[in-house]
Parts: sequence; structure tokens; C-alpha cells
Amino acid sequence: MKKNKLRQIWAEGRPVLHGWLSIASPFTAEIMAAQDYDAISIDIQHGAVDYKDVLGMFQAMRASDKVLMARVPWLDPSWISKVLDAGAYGIICPMINTRAQAEQFVRYMRYPPLGERSFGPTRAVYAAGANYPAEANDEILAFAMIETAEAMGNLEEIASTPGLDGIYVGPADLSFSLSKGQLMPAFDREEPEVIEAIKRIKDACHRNGIQAAIHCGTAEYAARAVEWGFNMTTVSGDSRLIAAAAAESVATFRKLTTKVTASTDRPGGY
Amino acid sequence: MKKNKLRQIWAEGRPVLHGWLSIASPFTAEIMAAQDYDAISIDIQHGAVDYKDVLGMFQAMRASDKVLMARVPWLDPSWISKVLDAGAYGIICPMINTRAQAEQFVRYMRYPPLGERSFGPTRAVYAAGANYPAEANDEILAFAMIETAEAMGNLEEIASTPGLDGIYVGPADLSFSLSKGQLMPAFDREEPEVIEAIKRIKDACHRNGIQAAIHCGTAEYAARAVEWGFNMTTVSGDSRLIAAAAAESVATFRKLTTKVTASTDRPGGY
Amino acid sequence: MKKNKLRQIWAEGRPVLHGWLSIASPFTAEIMAAQDYDAISIDIQHGAVDYKDVLGMFQAMRASDKVLMARVPWLDPSWISKVLDAGAYGIICPMINTRAQAEQFVRYMRYPPLGERSFGPTRAVYAAGANYPAEANDEILAFAMIETAEAMGNLEEIASTPGLDGIYVGPADLSFSLSKGQLMPAFDREEPEVIEAIKRIKDACHRNGIQAAIHCGTAEYAARAVEWGFNMTTVSGDSRLIAAAAAESVATFRKLTTKVTASTDRPGGY
Amino acid sequence: MKKNKLRQIWAEGRPVLHGWLSIASPFTAEIMAAQDYDAISIDIQHGAVDYKDVLGMFQAMRASDKVLMARVPWLDPSWISKVLDAGAYGIICPMINTRAQAEQFVRYMRYPPLGERSFGPTRAVYAAGANYPAEANDEILAFAMIETAEAMGNLEEIASTPGLDGIYVGPADLSFSLSKGQLMPAFDREEPEVIEAIKRIKDACHRNGIQAAIHCGTAEYAARAVEWGFNMTTVSGDSRLIAAAAAESVATFRKLTTKVTASTDRPGGY
Amino acid sequence: MKKNKLRQIWAEGRPVLHGWLSIASPFTAEIMAAQDYDAISIDIQHGAVDYKDVLGMFQAMRASDKVLMARVPWLDPSWISKVLDAGAYGIICPMINTRAQAEQFVRYMRYPPLGERSFGPTRAVYAAGANYPAEANDEILAFAMIETAEAMGNLEEIASTPGLDGIYVGPADLSFSLSKGQLMPAFDREEPEVIEAIKRIKDACHRNGIQAAIHCGTAEYAARAVEWGFNMTTVSGDSRLIAAAAAESVATFRKLTTKVTASTDRPGGY
Amino acid sequence: MKKNKLRQIWAEGRPVLHGWLSIASPFTAEIMAAQDYDAISIDIQHGAVDYKDVLGMFQAMRASDKVLMARVPWLDPSWISKVLDAGAYGIICPMINTRAQAEQFVRYMRYPPLGERSFGPTRAVYAAGANYPAEANDEILAFAMIETAEAMGNLEEIASTPGLDGIYVGPADLSFSLSKGQLMPAFDREEPEVIEAIKRIKDACHRNGIQAAIHCGTAEYAARAVEWGFNMTTVSGDSRLIAAAAAESVATFRKLTTKVTASTDRPGGY
Repeated sequence: MKKNKLRQIWAEGRPVLHGWLSIASPFTAEIMAAQDYDAISIDIQHGAVDYKDVLGMFQAMRASDKVLMARVPWLDPSWISKVLDAGAYGIICPMINTRAQAEQFVRYMRYPPLGERSFGPTRAVYAAGANYPAEANDEILAFAMIETAEAMGNLEEIASTPGLDGIYVGPADLSFSLSKGQLMPAFDREEPEVIEAIKRIKDACHRNGIQAAIHCGTAEYAARAVEWGFNMTTVSGDSRLIAAAAAESVATFRKLTTKVTASTDRPGGY
Repeated sequence: MKKNKLRQIWAEGRPVLHGWLSIASPFTAEIMAAQDYDAISIDIQHGAVDYKDVLGMFQAMRASDKVLMARVPWLDPSWISKVLDAGAYGIICPMINTRAQAEQFVRYMRYPPLGERSFGPTRAVYAAGANYPAEANDEILAFAMIETAEAMGNLEEIASTPGLDGIYVGPADLSFSLSKGQLMPAFDREEPEVIEAIKRIKDACHRNGIQAAIHCGTAEYAARAVEWGFNMTTVSGDSRLIAAAAAESVATFRKLTTKVTASTDRPGGY
Repeated sequence: MKKNKLRQIWAEGRPVLHGWLSIASPFTAEIMAAQDYDAISIDIQHGAVDYKDVLGMFQAMRASDKVLMARVPWLDPSWISKVLDAGAYGIICPMINTRAQAEQFVRYMRYPPLGERSFGPTRAVYAAGANYPAEANDEILAFAMIETAEAMGNLEEIASTPGLDGIYVGPADLSFSLSKGQLMPAFDREEPEVIEAIKRIKDACHRNGIQAAIHCGTAEYAARAVEWGFNMTTVSGDSRLIAAAAAESVATFRKLTTKVTASTDRPGGY
Repeated sequence: MKKNKLRQIWAEGRPVLHGWLSIASPFTAEIMAAQDYDAISIDIQHGAVDYKDVLGMFQAMRASDKVLMARVPWLDPSWISKVLDAGAYGIICPMINTRAQAEQFVRYMRYPPLGERSFGPTRAVYAAGANYPAEANDEILAFAMIETAEAMGNLEEIASTPGLDGIYVGPADLSFSLSKGQLMPAFDREEPEVIEAIKRIKDACHRNGIQAAIHCGTAEYAARAVEWGFNMTTVSGDSRLIAAAAAESVATFRKLTTKVTASTDRPGGY
Repeated sequence: MKKNKLRQIWAEGRPVLHGWLSIASPFTAEIMAAQDYDAISIDIQHGAVDYKDVLGMFQAMRASDKVLMARVPWLDPSWISKVLDAGAYGIICPMINTRAQAEQFVRYMRYPPLGERSFGPTRAVYAAGANYPAEANDEILAFAMIETAEAMGNLEEIASTPGLDGIYVGPADLSFSLSKGQLMPAFDREEPEVIEAIKRIKDACHRNGIQAAIHCGTAEYAARAVEWGFNMTTVSGDSRLIAAAAAESVATFRKLTTKVTASTDRPGGY
Repeated sequence: MKKNKLRQIWAEGRPVLHGWLSIASPFTAEIMAAQDYDAISIDIQHGAVDYKDVLGMFQAMRASDKVLMARVPWLDPSWISKVLDAGAYGIICPMINTRAQAEQFVRYMRYPPLGERSFGPTRAVYAAGANYPAEANDEILAFAMIETAEAMGNLEEIASTPGLDGIYVGPADLSFSLSKGQLMPAFDREEPEVIEAIKRIKDACHRNGIQAAIHCGTAEYAARAVEWGFNMTTVSGDSRLIAAAAAESVATFRKLTTKVTASTDRPGGY
């Protein structure tokens, strides 16, 4: 089975740059996979994507050397099973609030004797190669999301779950939940209490020998998170990148042409 | 029938900012249509899109106030007919090299007595509204592309074709063809002979009372084209915007984190 | 965020006419959205539709002024989350049989502090507009279906669930369940005991200040339901409408041409 | 190879009732195929359908006993070839204006020695059965559309083309073209000159031993066409049927509930 | 409602040959349905298929006389409901480990009074025909999979669940689980302890008057299973069949041409 | 730009083994690309595939080292352009009957100054890499099909067309055409006159320094063709391989179980 390169990057003490896909298009996936990300995840939870898109996007990115993962919509065995069999090398599971949920997540992710994943990597074996049943438990990453006040209360218990590889911080939901709906959800939080919670999660990860990951809006914030010790940072994502780039292109044009009106050169007939 | 806003913009002497879609995704189309473009075209010729994508993308952009058009792959009546019936308010036809081709293009675009378009705007009437058969000939725009040495030789004849609304300059193919394969294809040409050809096309358009349009790579070049008198400029496109934005985001992260290695804070187990 | 027009209609004391989509086609959705419905729901539960269809159909109907909703297949957080993020202004959840289920439904529907919906309205913000996180809890409608004997036993408890906006009556399942499988499922029931149950649901809704909705087969029955006090009625649906219309067209032709046989005018060669 | 039932119906002197599909949905196709049509065609020319839709719709209708055909967008060998290999038992080709076009159409339709169709009925053999290469020329129907003034001038020449099975009248385009754009396109024409043209086409068909077919909007007009001697009539189509049925359903509800406003029974809270 | 032919085959004491589809293609489904299988299931659990594929594949196979079923990904009411409404005549549910799960499975499968399936066989009625609500409970088959050590411990309890029609053995997961991860998952086991477990399941089925089914890799092993008394055997599946056939074709060519190198006959220019 | 490995294989005097795809599935494409073919083509002409399938299948096979090509449905510039821009490294064009057609084919395939291909390899650059515009003319292969009596008459003229890389023999159509419809189309012909024609084509190729390719049904016949001097042979294809493998599997089971009837071991209740 092809090795999971993220383990090597982490072993070398380097941070992982993680790309994010919300657009259901194998072609945009292929474009994103041509960039210098270490890993790329498809967001099935909030992205406008379905299982068939995941399959096509994994296929379109297979030729790249990226580690391909996905965020599932929920702690839902149907989704986890199908995405793993489609070839994912990692799953990010949202809304893990208790140790019991974390343990259930691990069981869905692992073959016996560690868990109860059912065998049938129908497409995965084409991407991952030989010896998949014996090695999948070691290569595939399980990230639990901590993003609620309840989860913060169970932080240590969750982070110490055997078989979990890391915790993925969702700053938007976390600040929404911690503030009881007062802080509007967004990335790249500057509120001291949120930053402190984020750092607490990172510390809990490292105490338990697992990776700390966080979703960021900008490269600058991601670099700060790396300085804080985070092992993996997501920077923006396809739909936000295209919207911002198009907006900037349009604004530049509008600004440059604002004085160009009623040219006498225009055709008379209209 | 809903009026074609581009005619109004041109009547007011303003330039049209034209967006460009090569990604087969109704969602990226919806994102692009949320930006301040005046018109947006789907590139069926070189884009990774098919008829079904065109239909879905037109539907996803219908709620915007953009004028929706498409570039067809060839002077091909099947494609022109199906895209018009899907609701296009304009067609850009590549590789129009002769007056006869320009006339044939117009015939495919227009209902009797101006042309031989067959009647059946099955989906178009939902987007365009009542009285379509009587008004479509007036509202729908026909742009011929001039992009070869042969076409430059027939410039005046093409530009004077009755029923043609404008000429769309493809600078990549034009410079490729004019230089007999010596100038590698790209947008935003600076070679004096290419700029001169581009301006000649614009002049021929205006002499014949039709619009001059050009495909650009940057807002800056597009603003120059507007200063030259062009009436419509395309600035980049979805697939290029996302690739550039992702590349820049990645580069910023890599630069900012280049010194972060072997943090002592990383988990011991890996 | 764009206001939910149904609240305005109800504030004015008018009934809501609700369309129903079971065909997975953005084009039939666009055709239906061109009719004078107030709201239209996509039936993911029993309709032949999937998530990708929902997305495309919402996009195709966005240009209309209809309030777009969906019935999910089950009290399933994956489905509810994905359909809301796709832009739904309301969810109809089947088989709510207990107060606990009704409360769970509300929690899946609402952002903190009212619930535990995760933030990420990736496509919804394009359709709904600015300020979505602050206003979504107010604008989006939560309808629980009461359609079993068990649910009838818990009627008052369900109807009084905080955060629920209404109850949607499924007469087919309701009569099937109430009769323990004796009454074959169908709409527009005339059995006194079923009508009485339907009216009891309506009364429970109004006692608790929420809306009463019901699925009908004909406009005539829907008008009766409005007279009974129902606030929203569904009348038939796309797949039933087309089947009935085609059947009637065919029957008319067959009747009119029944005597036309063996015309002497037919070609000799066949 | 399964026999083409239309030849049997015509041999018995009965008229063929022909259904029409413009919606790209295997499910609506399956619904339509459950009605009592003799044959059903998919309209690739003006319908919102693509090749993949044709394939899926043919598959969804295979279990019915309908004769399945398609209208291609143009006298285009790519389309004719692919639709035949997908299993069509007939092709309706639009805009046949000359004998040369009619002969070219026949050549695209027929295997050697009658034509130049290339062999490869990859999916067709599954639907049509054994001995396809030897019998396809006999079973598959070729209908040319006469719908322009030019075609009317070449009527006899077209109708007498060897290998042509029938002429399909498009009354909308025909009246549009004959009137030089004065008569807005529609079906079920009552103008004497159009009816006369329609009857002339029918007469030319029968003189040449081929079938006369016509596209109608209503069963009533179709029945008149059968009385005139037409051998096949299309009555409306899926997208028109659903639009009309939904409009009627909505209108009935609106009429019945027009007086129901400001019910005192409505919930107080809204 | 069309009768389920498997009940007739079993009544005659014959074994059912069961095909297996993991490829999301209506065309491969149509090819498989042309072979002499008695029943064919679509594997949604491990196959690369989604709901839309199931629908299209059921439609493409409807014209055959095969009994069409599906394996769902989990004991998940959304999936079971949607697949039944799409027309399935049977469901295979993986990972049934307890009597409670088996009973829940039956409740999801059956209409009142036997269960709590919601009524709305939108597409199913087209394939299954009239009287569906009254007869579906009798015709549709419910197969529970026994594939873990836990399930083996509850074998008798599961097999005796009222409303269950059979047990489907998954030998790969079963041996993986029984051996606590030591036996790599595969079909056609020869380990005596696995064969003994397989026979125990068959015996428990027959004691309880239900069918015993097993997934096999080869026709030879399936024939042995039939001799052991199994009532239904799956033999390989589409993705394995094509991979093996292509590999064999390639190997034959390579072997036959291994000596053909550097032919002097090859074109000189390359 | 990535080099076309077929040129290297030919330079070494080895024959190319060519796979063939008629099933519209990225997954079957991925399975086929895992076998030891040198090149794989997608058959758009007779296969049940469309442009979107080609794109997804090319993406799914990109990670393999196969040379990816396609057969277009006709000498049709829309198709050739779109398939090349999707990343094809070769095009097989059917029904090239004259030198003029062969020259037109080359012009569609090549950038200036050799041809008139329009520039815009939107997806191709991701698969092919840098310097595409300068090197594409050298790397991409143009195969003309000779498959009619007319083409045989123009053999030398076609084979000597500058810019053509090879001739692809379609034995089914060729024998159908040469025999004026008497020889039913099939591969692996044994008629002496057909074999002689096939060898004549090969000789004409080699006289003109281009490659000779042929479509075969079996590895055995392909090996004979290699012995005759053919440089590339296609062996069967995905849809035929799966049909044959399934048929054989079923036949084996039926034969082995033929005596197993009325087992006394079967459940009593059925």
C-alpha cells in the first residue's frame, strides 16, 4: 500500500499545508492538486459535493502526490465507509463532542481487530495498491473535529482516544458555540478567549501524541498557527479563492475604466 | 422578451466587462455571476464543458442580471441551435475566416426571414419571457471571432456582414496564425504588429457599426483595450483565476513557514 | 438575508399554495417555478432525487420568487445539514413520532444558541444573501410530519416543541398507520376518522401558534383543507401531474380516432 | 432483431400515436412510456437533452413496448450515428430542404450497400437483439422534416428519395418560413394556406408510398390530421403537458380559495 | 404487483444465481442483465455507486426478467427507503449483529402493520405494477448479513426474526472478524473453522425457514455452497470480472508476441 | 510536455497493445488502465460515451502510464478540438475515404503552421505539462481509419498525407463495405480477400513511413497481425470483455449445479 506522506512530513517536524475543496468538479480538483499542497480534502459536509463528486475528484487528483482526504457530513457510518472505499487516506469527522463519539468514529475507521470497518475497498485498492487490508489501519488518518463548548469540556478524553490521529479545529463553529451564538462564525479569530481555546486544543493533542490541525482563512493566520505548534493548516478553499480572485479582477477593471464613458469612437448604430 | 442589457450599455457609451467560464460547474457559475460582470460567457470550445453543463450553468446564473452567452466549438448548427434554445443571449463563433462563413453564422442565428434558425426555444422562453419568436432576432448577439491570417485578409468583408453584431478578437490564435506558429499563443500581446492587427479589427468594426470585443488576461490590458476603443473585454476566466489564486495562497504560506521546521513542540510519537 | 415570504403570507392570513417535486430535473423544476405557487419543495424522501439534483433544482428555481424547501428522507443530520447549506428556506422532516424527535429535529435546524447546526452555508449565502448566520434561525422553516398512530398519541407534545414552525400532515401514511394497514395509502381521505385526525392536528398547531400544512391530491381537496383552517396545502406534484396529463391526452386521441382504421388513403407499400 | 411495430400498425391501416420528450429525465421518460403511445421520440434538437440523456431514457423505456426514436439536431452524422448505436428504431431529421440532403440522410442511416453507416451498435444490440446488422436497414425508420419554403419547392424530389420512410411536418417552422416570418411559429395552424401545404405534403408522401407524420399541439387537431390521412401524429410533449397541468391545478386552487383570507382561525403568533 | 420470481425458484428447490454490480453504469448493468442470472444486486455499500446510479441501473435492467435488489451501506433508514422506492425487490443489509438490529431492519422494510416503512413508491410502482401497497410486504425480500463474531453469537436470534427472508453470508468480513484480523479478507475460504461457521449459518436459516445466501468468488465455490444447501449464491461481480478478463487478454497477447521485436518490416521513420 | 511513449515503443520495434473503452465509466477506465496496455482509446463513435465521460475517464486514467487517445464519431472539428483540449495524445478518425478528408483531418489536429487547430488546451496542459503549444504537433498522433471500398481505392493517397501518423483498420466496416453488405461485420476476418486488403493497408503504411494499426477481437488474431507487421493492435474492449466473462461465469455455475434440484435441505416454508 502506498505510504501516507503526511506521517513522513510530521516525522520530519514540518507543517502540512492542506487544501480544501467545496466545488463539485474534478477539473477544479485537478487544478488545485497541481498546486504545492501536501494534502487536499473534499468537504462533503458543507461543500456542494456528493459521493459521486468525491469519487471523480479523487480520480482526477490521483496522478498528483497529494494525500487525499475528505470531511464527512456527520459521524455517519454510511458516509465514512463509502468515502474510505473510494480511496480516502484520511477522514475528518465533524462535531465530535464526547469520548464515546470519538471511539465510535475510530471503530468506523478501522478494520478488525481495532474496529468494525467492513471490507470492500473496491476502488481504493486501485489508488492505494497491494496489501491494503493489512496496512490500511496504519496509513489512513482519523481526525476528529472539536468545535463546540461540549467538546471543549471533553477535550482531554477525546484527544486521548486510542486510534485517533489528530484533532481538527473548526474555529467558526467553535467561536459560535463558545459564545452561545454571540460571535458570528468566521475563521482567523482574534478574540483572546478563542485563541486560548485553540491553543488548549493544540496542547491536548501534543500531550496525547496526536496531530493538531486548524482551518484558516489566510496564509498569514495559518503561519501563525504553525508558530503556535499546529501540525496541519488549511488555508481558504476553492470556492473562496475563486470568488475573491474574480472580485479583485473585476474591481481592478472597474477602477481603471471608470473614466472611460461615452467614447466618441463607439459604433453609431447602438 | 427580456431586453439584452448590453445594447443599453453600448448605447450609453460604456464598455462591457465580460466574464468567462471554462469549468463545468453550476456552482462556480453562480459564484462568478455574483461578481460585477455585465455579461458572462461559457466557453464550450476550449472549456471543459458540455451541453448539459451549459444548461445547468445558465439556470444557476439566471437569477443574476448578467447577459448570458456562450462560445460554441465551431460554426456548427447543432451546437448553435441547442445553445440558443437553452437560453443564450449571444453566441461567439470561433474561426470565422470568410464572408461566406460569417453569413452562414448569421443564418444559423436568426429566425426567418433573416435566417434559418429552427423554432423551439424550449428552455429559452422560461428565461427570456414572452414574445420570444418576434424579438429574439433583435436581442440575441452574434459575435464572429477573427483569429487567423486568412480572416485578417477578409476583415472588411466579414465586419460588414448584415446581421453580425460584433467581432471578438482571439489574440492567442491570431498571433499564432499571423506568425505562422512562431509566436507562442498567449493573451495580452505587446508585439507591435499584433497590436496593430487588433486595432485594425476594432476600426473595421466601428466603420461597420458593430461592436469590437477582445479576450484579455488582465484587467490592466483590458483597460488599455477599452482606451483603444474596444466595446467589450473579457478578463481572464474561472479556471485561470482559481489556479492563480491558489498558487499565490500556497506561495505565501510556504514563504512564511519556510523557517518553521523541527519544532520541538510537535508530538513525540511521529 | 432575503426574507421568507411565507411568514408574510401567513401574517396576512392567506393560505400558502405549495408545489411538490419528485422528478430529478432542473428543467421541470424551472417549469414548475414558473407557475403561481408560493413555495415549492423537493421530495428527497420518496422522490427520485438525490443531493446533486436538489442543488441543481434550487439553482434553477432561484430566479423565481418561490420559497424553496425540501423534504428530507429521515431525521438524519447529514441530509438536513447538506440541504440547508444548499440554500433551503425550509425542511419538512418525515416520521416525527415523539417530542424527543421533534426537539432533535429543531437542534439540527438551528444555529447556536438554539441548536447545533454546524456553520458553512457554502451555497446558501449566494441565494440568501448577507447576514445569513444571524438571521437564518428566524427565516428557515422547520416542519415536522405527523403520520403515524404513535405521533397522534404525542400530538400536543410535538406541536408545542419550541422552535418548530409547523406540522405537515401526510394523509397516506397517517391513514395506513391509524388503520393498522387496512386503509390503503392515498391522499384526499374521506373516512370520517381520518378527517377528524387531520382536524385534530390542525387544532393542535393553532393552539401552539404554529402552521398547519397538508399534502393533497387535488385543488378541490386543498381548498377544503384551507376552509378547515390549514395554512399551507400541497396540491399533487410534478410526476403525478405529467402522468395524468399524458394519460388524458392519449385517451382523447384514442377516443377521437377509434373509428379511423384501414384508411384507403394510406401508402400502398406497407 | 425485434420488429418495428410501427410497420405493423401502418400495414393494418391504423394511425400511430407518437409521444414527445423534451425533458432530460429517464424517470419522466418512464412515466411517458407507461401511457398508451405507439412510439415515443426524444427531441435532441429543441429539447433540453444531450446524448447521455438519450441513452438513459432509451434504457428507462426499454421495458415498454413503445417504438423508440429521436429527432437529431441537424443532418449531422455524429449525432445520427451515436443515436442509432444507442438503440433508436427511427430518426427524425430536421431541415431537409433538398433531394441531396434527403439522400445524404438516408446514407447516414443505412448500412452497406444502401448507405455508409458505420458498424458498431454497441448498446443497440442489447435492446434490438440478434441479427441486427442484417435487419437494421429494414427495421429502422428515416423521417425527413419538411419545414421551409425551400423544402416545399423540392417536395416531390424529397418524398421520392429511395430509402426514406416518411416525412415529418413541423408546422411551426413551416408557417414561419412560408410567411417569411409573418406568422408566429405555433402548432395546430388554421390558416388555409398552411393547411393546404400540410395536405400537399401528405399527398406527396402517399404518392411515393411513404408515411406522413405531423407534430400537433392537441389531440383534437391530431385527430383531424388522421382524418386528412396522416399516418403518425405527435400530440404535445412532456414539457408542455406538465406546464399546462400545473398551471391548471394552480388556477383551480387560486379560484377556489380566492375568498379565503384573514381566517380568524390562523395562528396568532405570525 | 409483479411477483418476485425468487420465491418461485426456491419453491421449486432450485438455487438462485445472483449477479453483483459495483460499477456505476446503466450500460454495464444492462450487459449483466443480459446474462442468465436469476437476480442481480447493486452494491451500494462497497461499490462505487450512488443513489442516482441505482435508479438508472434499475431502469436499465427493468426490461430483463431479473429480480433486482441492492445492498445498502448500513442499517440506515434513508438508504433503505430510497432504494425501495426506486423499485428494489430486495435489500441486503450489512453488519446485522443483534436481534434488535434485525428487527429494526424488518421495520424499515415493511409497511404497516408489520413495520414503519413510509408510503411513496414513486418510481417503484412503474416497475412493480398495480396493488403495490398491499403486496409489497410479501414480495420484497429482506436479507440480513452475518459477518462478525458478534453476529455469530446471536445467530439463532437473528435468524428467527419475524419478517426476515434470509441471511447473506459475507465470508471476507466474517473470517476477518472471527480471526480478530489475522485472516486477510477474501472469498471462497477453505479454513475449516470458517467453513464450519458458514455451514452453521446455513443450518440456522433452514431451521427457521428462511433462505441462506453466500457471496462467492468463483462458480466452482458457489456450486459447492449449493451442495452444502445454500439457496442463493453470488458469483464474483462486474468489476472483478472485467479486471480478470482484461488481465487474461493482455497476458495472452504479451505471451504470444514476446518474440516479436525489432521487426525489419516496421516504418523507417520512427 | 510529457513524451508520447508510443513513439519510443515503435522506435524500439515493439508492437503497441491498445485497450478499448466503450463503457462510460471512470471506474472501468481506471480498472482497464491498471492492466498492461501500452495505450488506451475511448470509443466516442460507437461506444456509449459522451464528452463528459471522456474527460472523467482521461482524468481517472491519468495516474497510469498509458497513452490516452480517443476515436471521434466523425471527421468533425467540434469533437476533435474538444477531445484534444481534454488531453488526448491521439485521435482515431473514422471513415477517411479520400486524400482531401485525410488532409482536413490533419489540419484539425495540428497547430499553425501545420494546421488550423485553435489554441486552448484548458485541461490538456494539466495532464501534458509545460511547453504544450510548441510540442503538441509532435507528440499527438493522428490515425485515419480506412474501412470502405472507396478508401481502399484511395489507399496510397491517404497513406501519404503529410502529418498523418498511422492508419487504423476497421475490419468490420471494411469487410461490410468491400462485400457490398454480403459479409456481416465482425472482427478477426479469415476471408482471403479481406486479409489481403488488410495486408495491403499495412504495406501502404510502411511504404509511407507511418504506423499500421488494426482492431482485433482476440489476442490470438492480434498476435497474427503483429506477425504480419502491424505496429498497433487493439484486442477486444471493455464491454465485450465483461459480457464474455459474465457469460462464462454463469455458464460454469449452471453446468455445475444442473443436477442440484429439489434439495431436501431447503427451507420448508417456501
